[in-house]
Amino acid sequence: MQKNAQEGTKEIVFYTNPESRGCIVRRMLEELGVPYTTKVLSYNGDMKTSEYLKINPLGKVPALKHGDLVVTEAAAICAYLADRFPEKHLAPSLDSPERGTYYRWLFFAAGPVEMATSAKACGWDLNENQQMVGSGTHKDVLEALELAISNGPYICGEQFTAADVYVGSHISWGMQFKTLEERPSFKAYVERIDARPGIKRADDLDNQAKIALQTSSE
Amino acid sequence: MQKNAQEGTKEIVFYTNPESRGCIVRRMLEELGVPYTTKVLSYNGDMKTSEYLKINPLGKVPALKHGDLVVTEAAAICAYLADRFPEKHLAPSLDSPERGTYYRWLFFAAGPVEMATSAKACGWDLNENQQMVGSGTHKDVLEALELAISNGPYICGEQFTAADVYVGSHISWGMQFKTLEERPSFKAYVERIDARPGIKRADDLDNQAKIALQTSSE
Ligand SMILES: N[C@@H](CCC(=O)N[C@@H](CS)C(=O)NCC(=O)O)C(=O)O
Ligand SMILES: N[C@@H](CCC(=O)N[C@@H](CS)C(=O)NCC(=O)O)C(=O)O
Repeated sequence: MQKNAQEGTKEIVFYTNPESRGCIVRRMLEELGVPYTTKVLSYNGDMKTSEYLKINPLGKVPALKHGDLVVTEAAAICAYLADRFPEKHLAPSLDSPERGTYYRWLFFAAGPVEMATSAKACGWDLNENQQMVGSGTHKDVLEALELAISNGPYICGEQFTAADVYVGSHISWGMQFKTLEERPSFKAYVERIDARPGIKRADDLDNQAKIALQTSSE
Repeated sequence: MQKNAQEGTKEIVFYTNPESRGCIVRRMLEELGVPYTTKVLSYNGDMKTSEYLKINPLGKVPALKHGDLVVTEAAAICAYLADRFPEKHLAPSLDSPERGTYYRWLFFAAGPVEMATSAKACGWDLNENQQMVGSGTHKDVLEALELAISNGPYICGEQFTAADVYVGSHISWGMQFKTLEERPSFKAYVERIDARPGIKRADDLDNQAKIALQTSSE
């Protein structure tokens, strides 16, 4: 009880840019419905100050502060928030098999999907290096993603989780930026995710932030 | 209670090859000290059968079955096992700030460290693509890893966790295969990890499996 009360008072500070992987964390925060303070950082400028490099030595967004704790990596932030606010049910319970499915696809997106989409964008050859590189080929990654979303409306079946926030965002942006092929199953899954009020609210906030940035730089 | 009794009877099947990222999961299993059955799969042969592709469509090891559940991705398997056997204390508790640190570095190794080491091995240029690629430059990744291990004997301070199993293995093999620079802090951390009885037992088992494979192919 006391712990929860203290939790409630710890501020969440969210470092982002509306054109970045930070949008994934925004979606997570809005799905949770917890209060947070947003700091919009500019590329090259704000992200590279010595103050911010103490938070994330990569000079990248997203990052999150929760009290004194710093978390970076979009997937890590999603997983952390899901565990820290268990009453929101955005992660399967620890003693369920779904917990394994949840981690499987969270890590699959953070590793192989990031690899396959970056390779596509940068013109790196995965086929040549398939055995050693953790993603396998681009085609393998697409097949595995089909499997990830084949079991229900969501990755863990009926329960919407942080894995859907993270994997769903990757599939959505992958199709948009042409780093992942458009497939009917991917589109149907993304539509399901995008229809959620929390996700919509998050995307609206980031669209507003984008307009604000454009206006201020004109 | 009943749940735990059932858990105890569910078989853990571990698919691996002694020269693969499967060694990370072996380390996790030996640190846990739970019983498991090992299936050693050959590259190209066993990993590419239609039966195994149902377990992992990438045709890669490691993979784990726990009862009917399949988990792939080395980091996911480590995180799952840590949660599923909470009495082994290989993950920080859900309501601790260390839980955020734990996820931060698990996902950092699964994403950016995999990216940086693969790029080094394959000759891909990260500097050119630093802003978009999730790892940033190779040098950024090294600096962040220094930060990860700067807080104690272990990533989460005094508590040894699955994050040390996973990140420690990456640092160790990265230095060995020259995909990560040797640094005194990295070496000291790896020595700390390697000195643990569970880790030693795992590496011994994989060394034996390697010899068995070499003998059988002569
Ligand atoms: N591995 C990180 C990647 C974060 C990342 O690459 N962010 C980009 C925007 S999407 C960034 O901040 N780039 C700025 C830079 O590298 O200078 C994660 O998944 O959160
Ligand atoms: N992302 C996977 C990567 C697994 C992986 O790439 N395994 C390699 C051995 S270290 C493999 O099985 N390669 C066989 C192949 O691709 O044919 C993980 O982290 O577990």
